[in-house]
Amino acid sequence: MVQRIAALVALSLLMPGVATSEPLPSWNDTASRARIIEFVAAVTDPDSAGFVPVEERIAVFDNDGTLWSEQPAYFQLFYAMDFVRRHAAEYPAWRDEQPFRAVLENDMDALLASGEKGIVELVMASHAGMTSEEFDASVKAFFAASRHPSKKRRYDELVYQPMLELLVYLRANGFQTWIVSGGGIDFVRAFAEDAYGIPPEQVVGSQIEMAYELVGGKPTIVRQPAINFIDDKAGKPVGIARHIGRKPIAAFGNSDGDLQMLQYTCIGRPGTLCGIVHHTDAKREWAYGKGSHIGGLDAALAEARQRNWTVIDMAGDWKVVYPFEAVFE
Amino acid sequence: MVQRIAALVALSLLMPGVATSEPLPSWNDTASRARIIEFVAAVTDPDSAGFVPVEERIAVFDNDGTLWSEQPAYFQLFYAMDFVRRHAAEYPAWRDEQPFRAVLENDMDALLASGEKGIVELVMASHAGMTSEEFDASVKAFFAASRHPSKKRRYDELVYQPMLELLVYLRANGFQTWIVSGGGIDFVRAFAEDAYGIPPEQVVGSQIEMAYELVGGKPTIVRQPAINFIDDKAGKPVGIARHIGRKPIAAFGNSDGDLQMLQYTCIGRPGTLCGIVHHTDAKREWAYGKGSHIGGLDAALAEARQRNWTVIDMAGDWKVVYPFEAVFE
Repeated sequence: MVQRIAALVALSLLMPGVATSEPLPSWNDTASRARIIEFVAAVTDPDSAGFVPVEERIAVFDNDGTLWSEQPAYFQLFYAMDFVRRHAAEYPAWRDEQPFRAVLENDMDALLASGEKGIVELVMASHAGMTSEEFDASVKAFFAASRHPSKKRRYDELVYQPMLELLVYLRANGFQTWIVSGGGIDFVRAFAEDAYGIPPEQVVGSQIEMAYELVGGKPTIVRQPAINFIDDKAGKPVGIARHIGRKPIAAFGNSDGDLQMLQYTCIGRPGTLCGIVHHTDAKREWAYGKGSHIGGLDAALAEARQRNWTVIDMAGDWKVVYPFEAVFE
Repeated sequence: MVQRIAALVALSLLMPGVATSEPLPSWNDTASRARIIEFVAAVTDPDSAGFVPVEERIAVFDNDGTLWSEQPAYFQLFYAMDFVRRHAAEYPAWRDEQPFRAVLENDMDALLASGEKGIVELVMASHAGMTSEEFDASVKAFFAASRHPSKKRRYDELVYQPMLELLVYLRANGFQTWIVSGGGIDFVRAFAEDAYGIPPEQVVGSQIEMAYELVGGKPTIVRQPAINFIDDKAGKPVGIARHIGRKPIAAFGNSDGDLQMLQYTCIGRPGTLCGIVHHTDAKREWAYGKGSHIGGLDAALAEARQRNWTVIDMAGDWKVVYPFEAVFE
């Protein structure tokens, strides 16, 4: 199940000039890399004041914009739009009904005009009414068949090579690496094990209601068209408390939606590590932050600077962004 | 953090006539024990048709009546009553208000007469309005200071020695051992690591609402007086889907509240193992089942027999019930 991440990390070892014994080979030799390595050294050294027992070595990661790209829109929205297009024949009413008509006519302005209500309707239509297994298969089919509009790559190829290396490095040092995503928990689970080596039980995310029933004698979880939990902003520490039940010692995010998770992890807790992936790389990825309609970063960046959290400068700190760049450069 | 379970399992090795190399030493040499050992042998043998990769070796356990006793009432109810008694001075109104008055006057009839509404009020008063840390400390203080009314032991000593051995045996064979309890998730987490060697992130349970806020600049989770999720009956497969995200291959329960979890694990899935702890031992523990106000067992027992699940006969299958019996016999 974790073939892909193994292959990606193996690929990174083929990069020119990279010694295989050094951690984080795709990171430039900057302050960000040094702080990560110092943190791990302290946590794992029994003689260090910063030593942390293995069972408390919990690191949490936002997903969209922290482990993979999120532009020009959350990839989960592309899944929802793709679902509507693929199933339009079954629901003729969608041709006259917003936000579905906007999706079928590829009218992004009309889709955005449908607002939060429209997005929720779109998500319910594409995430509910299925069993767990059907939804998982539907997401996997989307990944297999779809390509990112500008990058022309599978969506699950648009993961960040330096963050993959960080996940592997932390796990090699006894950490559990958890995803704490504003995205849907089962959407993320459908690719997290292959893409990141993170098993389903270590994914926290937004959730819809579910119901158990015997369908024709077969035990079945049916996904219900109602929101159960939004794992964003103040929801992230709550999601951590529900699923993990203890405080992380490291947290990484990229937007104001991650601020509370970073506060929860690092305020008043010396020896912890909080990091923000700052999207500064218009050439290789995207440059955005303050005022962005996706991944808006303002209060969290100010607080990061005030509290001396690690701000990861994508353009300056990373040798490559995506795994496929490591092969072709 | 897992000193106690280590000590308990070490103690079991001191039992007369028990070879240290044999698994499940406190189990009699019966069909139940044989089925467990055959299951584990098949799951772990790469040449067996029943082989299961390590990441899918998930075993789930009900808690009350499956891992520890639940008579004459759920131990969590004793915690709630104890909380009310300890905090009565802060809430003078409780003296005239049910169900609190019933608790303060030790009037079990009046407490039961307050019905589900009364129990919910009692749970809200004793489980909400605190931070996560305060609640954890409150539960631990209860365990330290309280004794079971008839067994005269700490509540967390009333765990089942044969089930502790089963947990250790499964983990030694690559399993994750999860608790899926109708009890409160954070109540169970407060003792599960010490008592069972099960970390907080592998506990699923009923939940109240929580809210994150900065209190005086300090990140704080405050427990809210509202139910979020009841992890019982059809809720158990939903709790498993939310927290684990894949189907277990082994499940153990003791009551009709566990039926759906057992169905979800074993129906249509050859090579899985489902077990029911049948309380048949009035001498060493309690004998109850059909019609019991706690741990009622009727439909699940009938279905276990129809589907050939493993029915564990406490009186016949277990050499000892509690760890302390292993020392003194």
